[in-house]
Amino acid sequence: MNAIVPIYALCFLAVAIAFAFAVYLHLWVKRQRTENKRIMEVSQLIHEGANTFMRKEYRILALFAGVAAVVIFLLLPSPIWNGNILENLSMALAYIAGTVLSALAGKIGILVATSANSRAAEAASRSLKEAFLVGFRGGSVMGLAVVGFSLLGVMAVLLVTGDATILLGFSFGASSLALFAKAGGGIFTKTADVAADLTGKVELGIPEDDPRNPAVIADNVGDNVGDVAGMGADLFDSNVAAMASALVMAQALDGGTGANAAMVFCYAALGLIASIIGIAFAKVGKDGNPTGALNFSTYSTTAIFLVLTAIATALIDGFEWRIWGASAVGLIVGVIIGITTDYFTDDTRPIVRRVANASRSGSAFTVLSGVSYGFISCMPAMVGIAVSALVAYQLCAPLGSDYALFGIAMAAVGMLSIVGMIISNDAYGPIVDNARGLAEMGGLGEETIRIADELDSAGNTVKAVTKGFSIGAAGLTVISLLGAYLSEVNETLASLGRELLTGFDIMNPLVFFGVLIGAAIPAVFSAMLMLGVDKNAQRMVREIRRQFRRIPGLRQGEPGVKPDYDTCIDIATEGALKELIPAGGMTILATVIVGFIGGPEAIGGFLLGNIVSGLLLALFMSNAGGLWDNSKKYIEAGHCGGKGSKAHKAAVTGDTVGDPFKDTAGPSINTQITVVSLVASLMSSLFVAFSLFG
Amino acid sequence: MNAIVPIYALCFLAVAIAFAFAVYLHLWVKRQRTENKRIMEVSQLIHEGANTFMRKEYRILALFAGVAAVVIFLLLPSPIWNGNILENLSMALAYIAGTVLSALAGKIGILVATSANSRAAEAASRSLKEAFLVGFRGGSVMGLAVVGFSLLGVMAVLLVTGDATILLGFSFGASSLALFAKAGGGIFTKTADVAADLTGKVELGIPEDDPRNPAVIADNVGDNVGDVAGMGADLFDSNVAAMASALVMAQALDGGTGANAAMVFCYAALGLIASIIGIAFAKVGKDGNPTGALNFSTYSTTAIFLVLTAIATALIDGFEWRIWGASAVGLIVGVIIGITTDYFTDDTRPIVRRVANASRSGSAFTVLSGVSYGFISCMPAMVGIAVSALVAYQLCAPLGSDYALFGIAMAAVGMLSIVGMIISNDAYGPIVDNARGLAEMGGLGEETIRIADELDSAGNTVKAVTKGFSIGAAGLTVISLLGAYLSEVNETLASLGRELLTGFDIMNPLVFFGVLIGAAIPAVFSAMLMLGVDKNAQRMVREIRRQFRRIPGLRQGEPGVKPDYDTCIDIATEGALKELIPAGGMTILATVIVGFIGGPEAIGGFLLGNIVSGLLLALFMSNAGGLWDNSKKYIEAGHCGGKGSKAHKAAVTGDTVGDPFKDTAGPSINTQITVVSLVASLMSSLFVAFSLFG
Repeated sequence: MNAIVPIYALCFLAVAIAFAFAVYLHLWVKRQRTENKRIMEVSQLIHEGANTFMRKEYRILALFAGVAAVVIFLLLPSPIWNGNILENLSMALAYIAGTVLSALAGKIGILVATSANSRAAEAASRSLKEAFLVGFRGGSVMGLAVVGFSLLGVMAVLLVTGDATILLGFSFGASSLALFAKAGGGIFTKTADVAADLTGKVELGIPEDDPRNPAVIADNVGDNVGDVAGMGADLFDSNVAAMASALVMAQALDGGTGANAAMVFCYAALGLIASIIGIAFAKVGKDGNPTGALNFSTYSTTAIFLVLTAIATALIDGFEWRIWGASAVGLIVGVIIGITTDYFTDDTRPIVRRVANASRSGSAFTVLSGVSYGFISCMPAMVGIAVSALVAYQLCAPLGSDYALFGIAMAAVGMLSIVGMIISNDAYGPIVDNARGLAEMGGLGEETIRIADELDSAGNTVKAVTKGFSIGAAGLTVISLLGAYLSEVNETLASLGRELLTGFDIMNPLVFFGVLIGAAIPAVFSAMLMLGVDKNAQRMVREIRRQFRRIPGLRQGEPGVKPDYDTCIDIATEGALKELIPAGGMTILATVIVGFIGGPEAIGGFLLGNIVSGLLLALFMSNAGGLWDNSKKYIEAGHCGGKGSKAHKAAVTGDTVGDPFKDTAGPSINTQITVVSLVASLMSSLFVAFSLFG
Repeated sequence: MNAIVPIYALCFLAVAIAFAFAVYLHLWVKRQRTENKRIMEVSQLIHEGANTFMRKEYRILALFAGVAAVVIFLLLPSPIWNGNILENLSMALAYIAGTVLSALAGKIGILVATSANSRAAEAASRSLKEAFLVGFRGGSVMGLAVVGFSLLGVMAVLLVTGDATILLGFSFGASSLALFAKAGGGIFTKTADVAADLTGKVELGIPEDDPRNPAVIADNVGDNVGDVAGMGADLFDSNVAAMASALVMAQALDGGTGANAAMVFCYAALGLIASIIGIAFAKVGKDGNPTGALNFSTYSTTAIFLVLTAIATALIDGFEWRIWGASAVGLIVGVIIGITTDYFTDDTRPIVRRVANASRSGSAFTVLSGVSYGFISCMPAMVGIAVSALVAYQLCAPLGSDYALFGIAMAAVGMLSIVGMIISNDAYGPIVDNARGLAEMGGLGEETIRIADELDSAGNTVKAVTKGFSIGAAGLTVISLLGAYLSEVNETLASLGRELLTGFDIMNPLVFFGVLIGAAIPAVFSAMLMLGVDKNAQRMVREIRRQFRRIPGLRQGEPGVKPDYDTCIDIATEGALKELIPAGGMTILATVIVGFIGGPEAIGGFLLGNIVSGLLLALFMSNAGGLWDNSKKYIEAGHCGGKGSKAHKAAVTGDTVGDPFKDTAGPSINTQITVVSLVASLMSSLFVAFSLFG
């Protein structure tokens, strides 16, 4: 009857295979030939720059995490003076474990990505097939590390403490790191990108990736810290949060070691195995279409997962078909969201072309049409999330009313099951993006740059899909976190002998109060990040201008004259972290204030408002950004007047607006939502005990 | 004990005074001297253009309203085959009355505004003081007409039918008209504005308001149909909806003729009287500051209302201080929202200057900083609405649980009590804006244009405040409409002998499903309107180019050569109505689909999601638009390089993006929310009877 022991064994096995495979892929990447000295040199600079950023980031994070751990130890899950020191200690340690494991995964990802970029560049001088493999396998190491560490961490916490609530602490640790990695990395990458473009392309008229530009290394570092480490941390966070909230509910249903918890672990392990299979067989086919190859891997991983879990559900006693159905619905809807996102951001589809056409009338029309289609693009994903939550709930409701919410949590677990593959696709992007830059800097010739461009373009297209996917997953996850929050509140209320909450009624003005304020938070949060990018980019622009003025021969590109790359990296790093703190702080502070004013019901509403407007804005910003980026590329490919035309100039404006939308603010909102949900769950007992109106 | 009879008398008295005063002001405006033939001629063209638009609009609307009335007669409040023909007939007639009275108010407003514009232009050649009075008094006629007709209509419906539910039909009629007037007018005005700017200022380099431009009359017509008729219809709609929802609850509390209904009417009448006093005494002081004069009138009207209602509450038996407190909170918060909006859009404050400064780096930075501050500007208003709802609720809760929701409705009534003054301020704007154009076309000289500019600038500043105010009021109103919806649902459930709903729990997946889809609607709706403007403007641009090519001597401005203004007006008119229908239809259709899939609970969530994201987007778009507009004006006043500089060019892009934001999409969202809320309330019995999951 009790399936948990063999399932744990399966999980450990899956994690072990994932780690072994990651090591193999890393060694495989390392073995690829590197000859071009210039490329190796620049790649080394990128590698060092990324390490500098991460070292500083992790140092500040360690400080933050240390303080947070002490606060957790003192106050959570309930104030230490009310009793259980051991539980508080576990929570604090779990929190630290969450930050450390996520940081470790990010570190490994960066390590491999910054060694794969130069090898992909050189492989591109041989063939598209080889270069694709180097890029993809380099990215896969990150994917495997993230999923391996998250599964391992969740299992370890549950095995050691036996208490699923402690998982929320672990998950909060992962979220804290994700906030720094995603939002901080997002500010870093766009600071460098915007500053490099403004001074290089616009003021001096030198090409992108020109080694004379002092910001060029920072720009390449940014791709790695934003898209590799940041995206990895984001999905680590979502994955842990999905499992944690499912396990909190499973524990309420069957004590945490019964069939439901077993299902969570089993599905997660099978998802990892499906991803491993998908990664192992990924390659560019005869048609030489890298986008097709990446999408094929995603679809086949999806199919493998569905088959494996169906077999497990049929064989294992206590596994319910209805719950399998919920997770299948989640995964399938995730894929559909990805496909609809693609419709709005792919330049073979009409929308990108319409925005490119509108650019002929000037930049205002690029912006207006992009904003409009960006708004419309939210609809399919919002409907998708809504339908999957509803269907998952209705499917599982016949098992009992508590199972219905568990069904939603399992839909989130299902959607995130193939996250290993998703991250691999995503991390592939910056590697080949870097490779393109390196090919240019290393003078590998036009054909190589063309191949690198093709690989890069596939990365961009797939990135839109993975972003849609990750926002969708975050949406379902936070719905189940809302359920976890309600359980936490009721546990406290029960312990105080007070009446339990059955839910959060929107006709209750406390709930409504929370909804309205919660809805404003993602808007303010993303605005603060974008203004941070702007402020920081201005700083870097000043530094770049200074270097061009002061370093003799730099502008003319005299041999041997090099810009001071490090100062630009330092500006991006320090600025990113400086601009991030107020935005993150505001979010957490608002949660605490609303909680202490309105109590647990206001927080229920606050979470809802936050989720709803957060999803809307995240989808809008990510999709509009991708749309503008690809419209620019479409024009650059020779349409609507091509490079240098009026339409192109307008499209560049659109792209510059879209950059912080899609790479800084949009994807950070995910993390913001998760952080707020977890802060709310963790502090729920305090909100129950002390609040003005609650 | 029963205060309703004298209160009705008071209302009729207030309405009679308002109408008499409006007639007096109209005659006063008419009496002002007009001499300049050119100005009279152009003013006549604007007048005719506005009439053409309104005639076509009302014709289509009549068709729409006719169909809607038949549907209402057949189905609402409950299908006619289930019984009460008389009730359905009343509902259909009330609906028609709602559209007719609102249309009438709009017609009167346009009539006066288009005769006041030329007189304000000529008065400006004499003095600022005189011109201000002409503009303001011209606008006041609209204000008085709107409030008079709305109060009269609500009273009449309640007196004739004795059933507050029928008021929802009246309110829906007002909303239907507002949807056409606000969204249709919004598309019209921006079509003409964008097309005139693109061809005139950008392509040909001729000044704004140059009579050679074929779109110049359409542009001036647009100001009237968008800002006078549209804004008037919008606030007519909000005002009626606020009273209707308060009266639905009052009727549930005391049968509709007791103290609570009396309070609603009494406060509305006193608000009208306060507005009349404020209007009568408005004038520019010695310092010659028109912005100050407009704001002073608003503040003094607020104070008069609070004093009058306090006296009434003290004197009249059954009037509760707590309810007075709720309406006072609503009004004060409304004023505060206005002031914070001003902070983000006034060029004497830092934000406008920061955006102007960012424009030095190019248009992408104008857009990015405007979007960011636009997002941040939502926060104070969202918090304000949240706090006023919470405080009103808590204040009234001790009177009984049903009173708490009534308190929120009274906060909305309080916020809208001074709506007569708000509309007067708002309609002042397009009159003096037109006057500026007329002064230029009539060659009244630089000093007159300077005075007209100063008056126009005050209109712009105050417009930001009134827009913030009207969005805030819509927010509170729809919260109380949510309450009205719940009452309607429970009435049906009670009649079927089924269990009543206590509210809408966000943990219920049907509610959640509704929330997510409802939240996406305002985004899609506003996107459709903006794309409509774009499409329509392209049509008009083609026509303008054609005229410049085909009409000999037009470009050179040879004497006697006139462009064909009418064709441009026709394009704007027909396009506006054509582009509006799909957006409005999508909204209503989505409501119906969600209702028939998820039932009344899904609709509860749908309304919440719609309100929350609607408020957020409406605030964002209105404020960002105002911010960009004033940043451009700030640069044009000689800062950051002044006219013709790089910063100016970037600011023009920002303004062009902001125009459809603030004049088409942003303010139409209000109406969209109200329409959806009323459709939901009216169809509630159908959703209870037939739905897939509900």
